[in-house]
Amino acid sequence: MSDAPVRDGLLRNVHLASFVGEGYGTVRNAALAWRDGTIAWLGPESDLPREFNALPTHDGTGGWLTPGLIDCHTHLVYAGNRANEFEVRLNGASYEDIARAGGGILSTVRATRAADEDALLAASLPRVDALLAEGVTTLEIKSGYGLDLPSERKMLRVARRIGELRGITVRTTFLGAHALPPEFTGEADAYVDHLCTGMLPALASEGLVDAVDAFCERIAFTPDQTARVFNAAAKLGLPVKLHAEQLSDQGGATLVARYRGLSADHLEWLSDDGIAAMKRAGTIAVLLPGAFYCLRETRLPPIAALRDAGVPMAVATDANPGTSPLTSLLLAANMACTLFRLTPQEALAGITREAARAMGLADRSTLAIGQRADFALWRIGEPAELAYALGAQPLAASWVAGRLRASGTFNSDHATV
Amino acid sequence: MSDAPVRDGLLRNVHLASFVGEGYGTVRNAALAWRDGTIAWLGPESDLPREFNALPTHDGTGGWLTPGLIDCHTHLVYAGNRANEFEVRLNGASYEDIARAGGGILSTVRATRAADEDALLAASLPRVDALLAEGVTTLEIKSGYGLDLPSERKMLRVARRIGELRGITVRTTFLGAHALPPEFTGEADAYVDHLCTGMLPALASEGLVDAVDAFCERIAFTPDQTARVFNAAAKLGLPVKLHAEQLSDQGGATLVARYRGLSADHLEWLSDDGIAAMKRAGTIAVLLPGAFYCLRETRLPPIAALRDAGVPMAVATDANPGTSPLTSLLLAANMACTLFRLTPQEALAGITREAARAMGLADRSTLAIGQRADFALWRIGEPAELAYALGAQPLAASWVAGRLRASGTFNSDHATV
Ligand SMILES: [Zn+2]
Ligand SMILES: [Zn+2]
Repeated sequence: MSDAPVRDGLLRNVHLASFVGEGYGTVRNAALAWRDGTIAWLGPESDLPREFNALPTHDGTGGWLTPGLIDCHTHLVYAGNRANEFEVRLNGASYEDIARAGGGILSTVRATRAADEDALLAASLPRVDALLAEGVTTLEIKSGYGLDLPSERKMLRVARRIGELRGITVRTTFLGAHALPPEFTGEADAYVDHLCTGMLPALASEGLVDAVDAFCERIAFTPDQTARVFNAAAKLGLPVKLHAEQLSDQGGATLVARYRGLSADHLEWLSDDGIAAMKRAGTIAVLLPGAFYCLRETRLPPIAALRDAGVPMAVATDANPGTSPLTSLLLAANMACTLFRLTPQEALAGITREAARAMGLADRSTLAIGQRADFALWRIGEPAELAYALGAQPLAASWVAGRLRASGTFNSDHATV
Repeated sequence: MSDAPVRDGLLRNVHLASFVGEGYGTVRNAALAWRDGTIAWLGPESDLPREFNALPTHDGTGGWLTPGLIDCHTHLVYAGNRANEFEVRLNGASYEDIARAGGGILSTVRATRAADEDALLAASLPRVDALLAEGVTTLEIKSGYGLDLPSERKMLRVARRIGELRGITVRTTFLGAHALPPEFTGEADAYVDHLCTGMLPALASEGLVDAVDAFCERIAFTPDQTARVFNAAAKLGLPVKLHAEQLSDQGGATLVARYRGLSADHLEWLSDDGIAAMKRAGTIAVLLPGAFYCLRETRLPPIAALRDAGVPMAVATDANPGTSPLTSLLLAANMACTLFRLTPQEALAGITREAARAMGLADRSTLAIGQRADFALWRIGEPAELAYALGAQPLAASWVAGRLRASGTFNSDHATV
């Protein structure tokens, strides 16, 4: 084997959940071949054309192959954590007590501002690695704990470095409109001005911004302020998405749909009008059951109405220190089933195919000829097990753009080159 | 280094959560030494007696050391799984549909009876390994999917083999009174007779039974039938425990307390009388939030009343294919906090110290001189993080009776012998 990274391969003796067409897109007793990081052939192993026999070959040992998992909504770059807040709250402290003690999101902002870039990277990598250990191959990461230009830049640079270091695609999202920084207390409009005319254009010109997000909520930014952020994004040609209808119906889904947004996320209070607007605009619904679970919410997103309207539903971790310290996309899928009553097939499409759509990525997330060779091999008997089991650690191996990622459990001696 | 297993060691540069005394029993900047599998010294590293410097030394790199985790309630030996049932239910099938199609617990009984001992072991080991990968060092495993003598024997033998293969303590529990086998439909009393006079004495004489359990519930066995099982256990000198008050108040906690039972488990419908009886008898409350979560229960166990009465609370996975396919004890701890409102300190004591009490084990589960050298080293900044984070994979290494268990992430080159 040469030292050049092997981006060609053949996997035999697997079942495929391709997520092409209806259901799981199942192909049993299959093989899948890739060249130069792109899927070249797949189908029943008995039909495998002889030309692929010369490729480096892996034995799938009867497991299942799915597209690599995609986490389309994370805030996983941050310093500090809020375990202490979790603890004092369970010991009886109120939200007011915690705010008075300097807790809440602004404690994460303080810690993130104080960390230098390397420290921020080091703090964030274990969270990335936990996701990768479960078959994630593409990731979205938001800024939003810096809330000033140098700190937001630092977060986005760390997100880029994570992609380079781990050899995966990381899409960055500028979320300057996450919370009001302390310097602008009582001056939200002035902060939004600064964000639109100063921060966002600067970061975009540095190539650090792939999309723009905001938190549209009574406790954050108004629909008008959100629209100004979206206008600034549109001027720069950047796609938008929105934290919408998490705690109340602000008409955020309709707003982001007006900008043909990639996604509206959370959606517990989503209205029928919002659903209709999303459907017309092709805006994806991103469900975040981890936050629902951690906050002990009781109002469910309107799953049946989204399903009936044909709005695609993605599922993500929302990995963040305050309301969803969750770095397991399989657990998010289980929660989507258990708490939101998605079917396992919907939940698993939600962390593959629909998550890619929510990120505007068309080159991956199904097993099909011409798609990127991003996939995950699982020790399971049927696809639904991925959403059913809690804490099972079923990943055998994963490939990113055709390269095998190190895996503690997959015997790479199976590869014969 | 000789080939003999090293059961001596010194860990420096760690913080201890000893679970001795109040709170976490914290000792910062500590060292801990062990000889022949038993803790020989612990305290501030600056006080370390020179005699321990010659022991094989590990650098804890500033992490936290806790007792090894203990899962005191599992049904993890079984064949098949119920992912399909999970899936068809989420696709709209009713419990009746599933029962008519041969689903439910009896489908697990059929699969478990059909599997030979090696197949049953192979099916169960990944679940054990998922627990061990999170720092579990002692485990309870119940029978109860065989429901006839040869199949219950097979399950218990597999449980014993798991302990030997993985080098950990496995305590076996005979749960013949889990469900009525199909051969005895309509003849529950006859089955209980058979269980008390045939199955249990035979299995106990083979050394396969460490404790006896039953499922006392309207859909399972009556208090009278349960009492007969407990009488048979008492005659053999075996301790008892009970699945009690999960779906209704059957007075099970009072019943098991009358036999000075090790634990009463589930307890969503536990009464004040039951709490008082448990307190008097020293019976531990075992909380199983995974089943509560999976079944979307709404009635909480009376946590505040248990706390006020001073009944110790353990937390376990209830790992089983039907109502809690959970093999993460840290996730169980998070659920105990998030869903049941335990404090992180209570939840973590619940998967260490109190879990050991629920198993009748006095030789482990705290960090103290003379205790077994079972511990887990974590990459965390404070103990509460173990209950706060979801899916974080924070284990650096674990030791069982003083022997380092292989860990993908802990660099054993740190050991200098
Ligand atoms: Zn978010
Ligand atoms: Zn149980």
